[in-house]
Amino acid sequence: MSLRVLYAQQSLLNALSQTLVRSMSTQGGSKNIGFIGLGNMGNHMASHLIKAGHKLHVFDISKPAVESLAAKGATAYTKTTELAKNSDFVITMLPNNDIVNASYEEMTSDGVNKNTIFIDSSTIDPNLVKSLQKRISAKGARFIDAPVSGGVPGAEQGTLTFMVGATDEEYNAVKSILECMGKRITHCGTYGMGQAAKICNNMMLGISMIGVAEAMNLAIRQGLNPHTFAEIINSSTGRCWASELYNPVPGVTPTAPANRDYAGGFSTDLITKDLGLASGVATSSNTPIPMGAMAHQIYRTLKSQGLGSKDFSVVYDFMKNEKYN
Amino acid sequence: MSLRVLYAQQSLLNALSQTLVRSMSTQGGSKNIGFIGLGNMGNHMASHLIKAGHKLHVFDISKPAVESLAAKGATAYTKTTELAKNSDFVITMLPNNDIVNASYEEMTSDGVNKNTIFIDSSTIDPNLVKSLQKRISAKGARFIDAPVSGGVPGAEQGTLTFMVGATDEEYNAVKSILECMGKRITHCGTYGMGQAAKICNNMMLGISMIGVAEAMNLAIRQGLNPHTFAEIINSSTGRCWASELYNPVPGVTPTAPANRDYAGGFSTDLITKDLGLASGVATSSNTPIPMGAMAHQIYRTLKSQGLGSKDFSVVYDFMKNEKYN
Amino acid sequence: MSLRVLYAQQSLLNALSQTLVRSMSTQGGSKNIGFIGLGNMGNHMASHLIKAGHKLHVFDISKPAVESLAAKGATAYTKTTELAKNSDFVITMLPNNDIVNASYEEMTSDGVNKNTIFIDSSTIDPNLVKSLQKRISAKGARFIDAPVSGGVPGAEQGTLTFMVGATDEEYNAVKSILECMGKRITHCGTYGMGQAAKICNNMMLGISMIGVAEAMNLAIRQGLNPHTFAEIINSSTGRCWASELYNPVPGVTPTAPANRDYAGGFSTDLITKDLGLASGVATSSNTPIPMGAMAHQIYRTLKSQGLGSKDFSVVYDFMKNEKYN
Amino acid sequence: MSLRVLYAQQSLLNALSQTLVRSMSTQGGSKNIGFIGLGNMGNHMASHLIKAGHKLHVFDISKPAVESLAAKGATAYTKTTELAKNSDFVITMLPNNDIVNASYEEMTSDGVNKNTIFIDSSTIDPNLVKSLQKRISAKGARFIDAPVSGGVPGAEQGTLTFMVGATDEEYNAVKSILECMGKRITHCGTYGMGQAAKICNNMMLGISMIGVAEAMNLAIRQGLNPHTFAEIINSSTGRCWASELYNPVPGVTPTAPANRDYAGGFSTDLITKDLGLASGVATSSNTPIPMGAMAHQIYRTLKSQGLGSKDFSVVYDFMKNEKYN
Repeated sequence: MSLRVLYAQQSLLNALSQTLVRSMSTQGGSKNIGFIGLGNMGNHMASHLIKAGHKLHVFDISKPAVESLAAKGATAYTKTTELAKNSDFVITMLPNNDIVNASYEEMTSDGVNKNTIFIDSSTIDPNLVKSLQKRISAKGARFIDAPVSGGVPGAEQGTLTFMVGATDEEYNAVKSILECMGKRITHCGTYGMGQAAKICNNMMLGISMIGVAEAMNLAIRQGLNPHTFAEIINSSTGRCWASELYNPVPGVTPTAPANRDYAGGFSTDLITKDLGLASGVATSSNTPIPMGAMAHQIYRTLKSQGLGSKDFSVVYDFMKNEKYN
Repeated sequence: MSLRVLYAQQSLLNALSQTLVRSMSTQGGSKNIGFIGLGNMGNHMASHLIKAGHKLHVFDISKPAVESLAAKGATAYTKTTELAKNSDFVITMLPNNDIVNASYEEMTSDGVNKNTIFIDSSTIDPNLVKSLQKRISAKGARFIDAPVSGGVPGAEQGTLTFMVGATDEEYNAVKSILECMGKRITHCGTYGMGQAAKICNNMMLGISMIGVAEAMNLAIRQGLNPHTFAEIINSSTGRCWASELYNPVPGVTPTAPANRDYAGGFSTDLITKDLGLASGVATSSNTPIPMGAMAHQIYRTLKSQGLGSKDFSVVYDFMKNEKYN
Repeated sequence: MSLRVLYAQQSLLNALSQTLVRSMSTQGGSKNIGFIGLGNMGNHMASHLIKAGHKLHVFDISKPAVESLAAKGATAYTKTTELAKNSDFVITMLPNNDIVNASYEEMTSDGVNKNTIFIDSSTIDPNLVKSLQKRISAKGARFIDAPVSGGVPGAEQGTLTFMVGATDEEYNAVKSILECMGKRITHCGTYGMGQAAKICNNMMLGISMIGVAEAMNLAIRQGLNPHTFAEIINSSTGRCWASELYNPVPGVTPTAPANRDYAGGFSTDLITKDLGLASGVATSSNTPIPMGAMAHQIYRTLKSQGLGSKDFSVVYDFMKNEKYN
Repeated sequence: MSLRVLYAQQSLLNALSQTLVRSMSTQGGSKNIGFIGLGNMGNHMASHLIKAGHKLHVFDISKPAVESLAAKGATAYTKTTELAKNSDFVITMLPNNDIVNASYEEMTSDGVNKNTIFIDSSTIDPNLVKSLQKRISAKGARFIDAPVSGGVPGAEQGTLTFMVGATDEEYNAVKSILECMGKRITHCGTYGMGQAAKICNNMMLGISMIGVAEAMNLAIRQGLNPHTFAEIINSSTGRCWASELYNPVPGVTPTAPANRDYAGGFSTDLITKDLGLASGVATSSNTPIPMGAMAHQIYRTLKSQGLGSKDFSVVYDFMKNEKYN
């Protein structure tokens, strides 16, 4: 009980300190920030930057997305080259390797403003980060990776985690900007290390979720009460984030997507994408990842059964359908 | 920091309450307790029962093991039928299904003392538990399962976890006995549910350890510092018991077997045995356990490479040997 | 072309020689043969024995099954002890370990006729074979294993393959009996080796079918014509029985179940059962079977999706449903 | 027996017809053929083209490799741009995606001779084939894929299989050239389909080899004679190329690498590379390949244990080391 009180106090302190940080983040003066990719997450992230007092310069292929931000005070662009020229920082939040690559090709085709720091918050291959960093630094500007975790709710509430791959100097330069959108800004190492950390963490997450689904299902099949077994596992060596805070069995963790037919949350499509990136870097570095590879195939199979848009914990529901002989 | 203080206080309270419980456990009178299987764990468990004031009746196929307990005050037996006749409780702590089965066949061949509760603390197939329970209750006595986790250190320090499959009445009858040897006595449900809980928990553990090994290895290969990455994963969604308290990368968790060349700890042989039991119950209940099955094969492969007696976290060491192309 | 003529001639010779063998099989006199288990396969096998001139003694828990054979001239029994007493050979064709075990316990409870050879054609654990052989030889009779492949069509057409685990003498004694029901009678070794051969062969079959399904699916997704790719694989190193004679892609092998919505053939339930037996012997002999274990889980997943009664090549259909991103 | 005679005659006819084809292949006049990549396979392939009467233009980063071909009459180049200008056909035989890509970038940087057909016989990603084909056809020349199977022995003996991805017209234009180096030239479909066919075939091969290793090992562990079991599997549904012609158990197939400590043959490194390509196209096309992915990880694990240069059938040797409990 007293732990809950402690946590509540902690939460309050966190909220207060974030507000403080954000109001301070523009004390050095409001910045010109470009934002490319105003999708489900990007639009919330850009809004937080406006609220924090920055001047936003925005671009998206969707006109309504751009207009929505313009209505909040952002300047709309139709050419990313111009957007970049007017920005001290450019944040990109795009779906995949190819689009990120094409976007930077286009955006820097006229040359770059030498003071600009490009921050890619998309989830992409660490090798592409390294290659973009080389190309952009060769042109005279800077490029760092800062992928996020926390999903749409984290973007909306400004509580994202940013995993930053950058030099110390660059990390310090962008930290206060990122703090407008997130509550934990981790410096993971040099270029690409933000992506590497995210991909490896999510590989572990993808593995442990299937593991929890299998263990819960097998326990229930043996006759164990799911609540009893969840308590046992969570106070023992089988415990993990997925078993404690995101249990895939309906009723066990009240806030988990399992309780709303696996809607919302972290989609099977996204974990499959992240495991695809893990698989790519494992292949290029000759690293054996038998469990990661198997998890990848299992989520891909869920997609093939039409469950791509469901929360990835739907793997439990998929597996439990087994009929007894 | 203040959390650490809280934990320290909690530890102290735990220790005090255990001492209290144990001194109280014989208030209802010292019991006659039979103990069969005085191996690495069994000999410590039996010693704790003697220390708590009970009268021990012991049997093992190893003469020195029996003599060692006799020297502490236990009565030695050469026939388990006689041991059982003189015991209110009989605890068995044996290596596998076949030996447990044969042992009960032998021990109950002359009939049973109707007041005896047989407590099997071995790790065996829940289906065998159910069948033994039927056979022994048909003879008029009682049989329950109470497998343990915590390993040799837990047995030595008297801090084992017991997972009990029994009726409420039986659970209440054995609780104070088990508290002489362990600090957490969990009632998991009816007969076999102790084993089911242990097996399913350990399947999850076996999966997550390999997952952590893969994720750490892949992260390090990408250039991440292992300490940095462990911190990231442990404060994020990839966190699990194995990443936090038993990290397979040397240097990351100071107390983990990884720091002593994977000696001691929980052997690859034992996790392989537990996953074999999981595989058996999954087959008999038609439950898909792709990750559990793969983990089983991976530990079996480690055994085939001569690593059976090493701590199961040696899977990291096995995987990291990859040479770059 | 000339190869086809050769094959046709071979087929004709096979048919002639089988007729010859069968008419000769009773030259040493018609035998009294007990048959227990008159299911989808057993009823055809028993009928072939009647046609070959033997006196059949039959039992099944299904009354209609027994009556159908009685109408063809078999003697019906309600007690297997009596059936066994009147039989020189007893053939059992039953669903699983437990039923085979119980059936022999019952059938031999009154003692055995010392000249009887018990032939188990069910698919069971080789370890159970060894234990039954010991128990029955201890009573004075003989017991051998002779599981079959070829399915219901092979049983109907009398073209089964029998894999026999027996001494040379026993093999020679039963060969002509088995030839009434099959066209290939292989002596695999001592007791249990018939089962071991069947289980290991079927494990390979289960693996290669999924492999073919994956390779065909991946090839088709890349744009290859399925017929072209099947020709390439079948004249190259990827070729296997499943790709050549039982292709899981509709249209490629005209006679395969893929062309009739995966009806008939070798059911997912049966391959799952066989892989379960493989998994059991692999666990008891500590043999790593990563691909076999994975195949087992995949077929089990198909069962969980309601495809247990479909031919096992339905795994292709299951996998191909993937929607592109 | 008569089948063996037939095969022998067939072989003789094949040999005669190949000689005929090759002597005819230059009847339309000797061609100027560029060859880039004179490694273990490339040097033999180029030599066959010289023997067939063509004028060879060669390049390699290894000077001795170039000199060796020059000694046989080839013209040596230090710039691939010049080599390409002087060639009607350019064949590339290079290690991987990146080197193939860089080589074409370099070679076509000065523009291309519009009559040249570039033939890539490397094993690369079908998506890279499509992109190279677009870039080179945009410059006015043609590009097709024609990867090979048959290994170093096939290259040496001129008995390679070429899997061609090209239009009908291009296929007809290159067929007689390729016939100088191989005995089977298969038209697989449009651009990339040669690679797709090779990759998918080799994925199947990689899966079935591990399957055979597991099945043989499990059979032997049960007590089956390896020769007996190989005969059973090869006349039954478990049969595949690996079990029949390349059995991983020493002594079973006399010519297989298993009989010479797994030296020579098709290396673990190469099957791992091919499975890496399969994994890549499976990810980009969202195709589930659980068995292919698992095979990939197993070969990668063999590499990690220092077995990369051994024939891939060494997986049997790796697995069989298991010690009994």
